[in-house]
Amino acid sequence: MKIVAAEKILRANDQLAEENREKFNASGVTCVNVVGSPGAGKTTLLEGLLAAIGDRVRPAVIEGDIAGSYDAERIEALGVPVVQINTSGACHLDANMIAAAIEGVECGDVDMLFIENVGNLVCTAGYDLGEHVRIVVLSTSEGDDKAAKYPAIFRGSDALFITKMDLKPHVNFDTERIAADMKRLAPGAPVFQLAAVRGEGIPEAAEWLLGKRQAKK
Amino acid sequence: MKIVAAEKILRANDQLAEENREKFNASGVTCVNVVGSPGAGKTTLLEGLLAAIGDRVRPAVIEGDIAGSYDAERIEALGVPVVQINTSGACHLDANMIAAAIEGVECGDVDMLFIENVGNLVCTAGYDLGEHVRIVVLSTSEGDDKAAKYPAIFRGSDALFITKMDLKPHVNFDTERIAADMKRLAPGAPVFQLAAVRGEGIPEAAEWLLGKRQAKK
Repeated sequence: MKIVAAEKILRANDQLAEENREKFNASGVTCVNVVGSPGAGKTTLLEGLLAAIGDRVRPAVIEGDIAGSYDAERIEALGVPVVQINTSGACHLDANMIAAAIEGVECGDVDMLFIENVGNLVCTAGYDLGEHVRIVVLSTSEGDDKAAKYPAIFRGSDALFITKMDLKPHVNFDTERIAADMKRLAPGAPVFQLAAVRGEGIPEAAEWLLGKRQAKK
Repeated sequence: MKIVAAEKILRANDQLAEENREKFNASGVTCVNVVGSPGAGKTTLLEGLLAAIGDRVRPAVIEGDIAGSYDAERIEALGVPVVQINTSGACHLDANMIAAAIEGVECGDVDMLFIENVGNLVCTAGYDLGEHVRIVVLSTSEGDDKAAKYPAIFRGSDALFITKMDLKPHVNFDTERIAADMKRLAPGAPVFQLAAVRGEGIPEAAEWLLGKRQAKK
């Protein structure tokens, strides 16, 4: 596991994000930025997706956390290459951190790079990392009002993955309400319903994701 | 309902927080800053606490949100005075926003002022609002690893309120683990276990909170 301390943000984020994307494009790497609240179930979702697509693409993961490497250890246990970024308190990843993380990584060996962002439904919205696809993850236990209350992150996302559908019978969560808000904020973005601990919804989400692959040069 | 647009942060936060605290002290107002992830159950917790203490103290609430006034409407429905702060995208409240919100409010009519911060387990940690008590709210559905992954906000809190205990049978959540992490980060801070939708744990938490009251001048 590679650990990068992201302390100095030196370059304008958007320019660097574009450079990251060009690097991914040149190597045929599809980059997926996964955002959501703390505890939305991003790592468990990734575990499910990696198992579902692992025989068809070569994945890698960048884990973004304030501190520690708990999530990276979970991914490493699956045998998937992983880079941990510790943001030293910063509330989101940025393009410069990603550039540092992929430096020296042989992108030719990777087809799909997942970035699990810091758990934050606000700050991650403003930072393009150079990804091709951004997925916003919302768990049923967080409530169906989150798109209305935190619109920016939903507006900029290519899909909404509703996680913890297995908890839905125990919480107040109106799938129609959140789907309607998402349609208003991001028309055309699909909404997937998942219970990743049971594998439910994973095959459909994985297929959609595979359809987003960039051509391998 | 008063709505404050917090766009210009002009003064150093800590100095202004101290001034807020002095204003609260002069009026015998106990100020409680409630922080936690989006969907941790902060508003539902407040609804429960307000019902439990409403006959013994005169409460008021400041609601902090990126956009909208969904939570403030819930509090207003209880007949409790509420001020909505819309942060226009900012990921946390700050002392300047609180100063603006309490301007013109007759603090003599209030014994306990609750501030529900923006849902964010990272950014809210660094901003003293002038409160006397800070409560960090964590729901069982977010997972027991959150203190380890987001230590700053737990370290600076006076109590941990574990919410959604009714979901515990359906999720992986080790109460001992989070309690141990909290003890390490904030020795002496009590840990309460609540299921606010059922009223469970509310009486004990309310009693603790009432014990934190500042003397009324």
